[in-house]
Amino acid sequence: MEQDTKPVKIIPLGGLEQIGMNITAIEYEDSIIVIDCGLAFPEDEMLGIDLVIPDVTYLKENQDKVKGLVVTHGHEDHIGSIPYVEDVLNMPIYATKLTMGLIERKLTEHGNLSNIRRKVVQHGQIINLGCFRIEFIRTNHSIVDAAALAIYTPAGIIVHTGDFKVDFTPVFGEAIDLPRFGELGKKGVLALMADSTNVERPGYTQSEKTVGKTFDNLFSDNKDRRIIIATFASNVDRVQQIINSAYKYGRKVVVEGRSMVNIIQTASELGYINIPENTLIDIERIKDYPDEQIVLITTGSQGENMAALSRIAANIHNRIAIKPGDLVIFSSNPIPGNEKAVFKVINELEMKGAHVVFQDTHVSGHACQEEIKLMYALTKPKYAIPVHGEYRHLKRHAELAEEMGIPKENIKILTTGDVLEVGENTFEVTGKVPAQGILVDGLGVGDVGNIVLRDRQHLSQNGLLIVVVTLDAATNECIAGPDIVSRGFVYVRESETLMDDCREVVEEALDSCLRKNISDWGKIKNTIKDSLSEFLWKRTKRNPMILPIITEV
Amino acid sequence: MEQDTKPVKIIPLGGLEQIGMNITAIEYEDSIIVIDCGLAFPEDEMLGIDLVIPDVTYLKENQDKVKGLVVTHGHEDHIGSIPYVEDVLNMPIYATKLTMGLIERKLTEHGNLSNIRRKVVQHGQIINLGCFRIEFIRTNHSIVDAAALAIYTPAGIIVHTGDFKVDFTPVFGEAIDLPRFGELGKKGVLALMADSTNVERPGYTQSEKTVGKTFDNLFSDNKDRRIIIATFASNVDRVQQIINSAYKYGRKVVVEGRSMVNIIQTASELGYINIPENTLIDIERIKDYPDEQIVLITTGSQGENMAALSRIAANIHNRIAIKPGDLVIFSSNPIPGNEKAVFKVINELEMKGAHVVFQDTHVSGHACQEEIKLMYALTKPKYAIPVHGEYRHLKRHAELAEEMGIPKENIKILTTGDVLEVGENTFEVTGKVPAQGILVDGLGVGDVGNIVLRDRQHLSQNGLLIVVVTLDAATNECIAGPDIVSRGFVYVRESETLMDDCREVVEEALDSCLRKNISDWGKIKNTIKDSLSEFLWKRTKRNPMILPIITEV
Repeated sequence: MEQDTKPVKIIPLGGLEQIGMNITAIEYEDSIIVIDCGLAFPEDEMLGIDLVIPDVTYLKENQDKVKGLVVTHGHEDHIGSIPYVEDVLNMPIYATKLTMGLIERKLTEHGNLSNIRRKVVQHGQIINLGCFRIEFIRTNHSIVDAAALAIYTPAGIIVHTGDFKVDFTPVFGEAIDLPRFGELGKKGVLALMADSTNVERPGYTQSEKTVGKTFDNLFSDNKDRRIIIATFASNVDRVQQIINSAYKYGRKVVVEGRSMVNIIQTASELGYINIPENTLIDIERIKDYPDEQIVLITTGSQGENMAALSRIAANIHNRIAIKPGDLVIFSSNPIPGNEKAVFKVINELEMKGAHVVFQDTHVSGHACQEEIKLMYALTKPKYAIPVHGEYRHLKRHAELAEEMGIPKENIKILTTGDVLEVGENTFEVTGKVPAQGILVDGLGVGDVGNIVLRDRQHLSQNGLLIVVVTLDAATNECIAGPDIVSRGFVYVRESETLMDDCREVVEEALDSCLRKNISDWGKIKNTIKDSLSEFLWKRTKRNPMILPIITEV
Repeated sequence: MEQDTKPVKIIPLGGLEQIGMNITAIEYEDSIIVIDCGLAFPEDEMLGIDLVIPDVTYLKENQDKVKGLVVTHGHEDHIGSIPYVEDVLNMPIYATKLTMGLIERKLTEHGNLSNIRRKVVQHGQIINLGCFRIEFIRTNHSIVDAAALAIYTPAGIIVHTGDFKVDFTPVFGEAIDLPRFGELGKKGVLALMADSTNVERPGYTQSEKTVGKTFDNLFSDNKDRRIIIATFASNVDRVQQIINSAYKYGRKVVVEGRSMVNIIQTASELGYINIPENTLIDIERIKDYPDEQIVLITTGSQGENMAALSRIAANIHNRIAIKPGDLVIFSSNPIPGNEKAVFKVINELEMKGAHVVFQDTHVSGHACQEEIKLMYALTKPKYAIPVHGEYRHLKRHAELAEEMGIPKENIKILTTGDVLEVGENTFEVTGKVPAQGILVDGLGVGDVGNIVLRDRQHLSQNGLLIVVVTLDAATNECIAGPDIVSRGFVYVRESETLMDDCREVVEEALDSCLRKNISDWGKIKNTIKDSLSEFLWKRTKRNPMILPIITEV
């Protein structure tokens, strides 16, 4: 490695504070590559927002430098924003086969597939993008065809693990290419950017195959019941193992839920899933078989409101109803924040007589402490940049890197938008680029901001009162109204006297304006708002939004 | 037990579907007693609601029969509704000393202490209420002075465990009175109503004392740091153990958070907590001691927005700011639904340089599987009625009761409001009483119902558009407006053309009404609403609440 090369820039544009929205730019002179392009689901306080996508202003401003998008795997938090971002940047996309299949399905839905150059890359293959060479290295994860990236830059080699785990006995394909990480370690790795998700968990993550054994046991113990299994649509290996158990125990497989149907179709077309003949049947044919010969694979393992399993549990699914004795398996863990929704669905299923199993039926797709340490032991990086986790994960990861012998000053926890310069003798944040998440609501991208969210928050907690007054343009006297309309405040029929009292308060406010010769509408509105707000707080200890509307004739 | 006595009625008025709102009526001829009187915190979809209290219509209608309220322990989900319900029922209250202390504090705040008869009961004591005799039996729980109840009815003995665990080495007082449960079992127990909270967990719950050892280790390993510990205010034993470790390691104790200060004061006055002299200092004096001589005990272990620890983490606390190196211990587990809030606070604390410990620093207050089995083994009930849990817990508990030899037909999972008749040869639900939770919003009790909540939900997701039109009373022509006001819909300055287009849509709708000679305001409003709603959905894929307001001059 030359001593006098310039440092390379690493710029996370998402994925740190906003979990999920994974996107990182790597820049050297006139070349930029982008790693992943995910979306985040809205936080609780982002009322009415559908999803959050990254701000790519910096990339747009440097569009001539952007050489391409390299994608580590096909999860939403790594590919979900591609259609939106490609509308702005039109970058060529590089990914392994299944990942690309999922990206193409997404672009097709969005209607911009044909405009974008795409290249399928194989594990072990190296591509050239500007001054960078990028090698795709096989890893294991909860979706097949995942890759880590070795990025050869003029300043040195950066290894980005993507999301990974070590699975010595994967269901499909081969184990993570540990020897290659070792080889890179011997060559000399400048910086390691590794997955932090499970850094709080000691030990090793179990092999995906262990879940297959659990399924076999459950199928064997429940030969007389219908079986329904909910899992993550994208976990193709999990679905494969359900199909294996179904085949072994003579059951037909029915797939339900749009994303599940889509992904199984893509995975099956591309050869990532192997379904024995006559095993898969259409949901319409479910009635042709006895219950004990059926297994239904479905979405909804996170208790999502409109997913198939939630609709089944609530008895509003148009084809499947729970029968007493059904066995329902959640092959998943609730993602933090989804616990209550998941338990609600479990309660509903059990009330209808189903037997629900939700413990010890899942393994994680992310490396635990010993696997992360293994990655450090193999790659021996000079610098450590923990990625993919909340701050508490990144910090624990930083401590773990220190335990693995990386000096404290060579470890950096970044914030979204940081420009980190990394070179043989450089490791510092030298700037900041715009990197706030952009809110998507319906067709609107970025048109809902803090003011709108604050109003939604206010309305959601307290409702509103609209006061309509018609004033005489000449005298400013009230000639119609005040009329009061409320929504989300109080059940009006029970509170007629309250509304009468509100009208009196407004009339008094209007009179006081007249007496003081106040004719400015803004001031009149404020007087109405203040008097009414004070009155309602005293009377009800509530604080609805008050909207005075004045018309004039 | 006589063969020809009538059955006793058990009527849960809360606490099953609505977790938390624990209240059960036991009725025999002209006597009713009420067990516990808790409150529930609102579900996510109950926007703007402060708390949920039980519907006691049935008790009000039978007020002459109601002999008293017996309370098992001092947690909010067992005492929180007492001030509201006592306003309606004015029952005498029976509870152990600390429980009564907490109830009295609550009644004092609410202003109705002096109206209500109260009697402190000791463990082992039996009180007479109407035709019932009620024995308070010592148990262990995450608050001291908890009691199970043996209710002697003409139909037989009902044992209600309250919330319990088996702690052979409690921090304060004695272990659960297992021999007495055995004695009752030998006498013959008609029905057991036992805690289901931890029925999904195998084995035994650890002793509270194990947490004391953990504290000692943490204090010993962190002699050079300030220590901040968040826990449940009501867990007096936990607080005692923190004080013990503080004293042992020469630290002063500061208490912060209103409920923490209140409960420690009550517990200390009543002799349930033992604070060595010169250990407790006022928060104002914190600056007089070096950091390593301070431990701060605080509320906020569930990430509650306005609790002390959350304010400290967000840097908006007026007296405490996190310093790099502070050790923050969460001595608690997140209650399902609070995970994200807790992790948010942890992230904020770590970003400010604190080191946060939140694993293995808590034990539960509820019995695990083996302890629940022990309760069945001792009391040998004829009938089992699982209580205190979501449906999935109650169902698992029912299965466990079956394993313990109770015949399936002698186990019943109740729904709130069920009237269960229990006798030597009777075990059936024979009726239903009103038992929906009542929503409290500010000072309003029960004035927010489904319509108001639906409106809040709609407003929270989509915001609103108000259309104001002034019509000529004679011709129905529009003489002012249409004016459009929006809130929570879209940032208007960026969408002026959208608002202009909306106005055009409304004008067109008004014209069409004129052309068709429609003069009914209801119809005009619907026409405006429908056209605007269709236009906005096409244009934005959003669905704001639309409120047309017509005035006439």
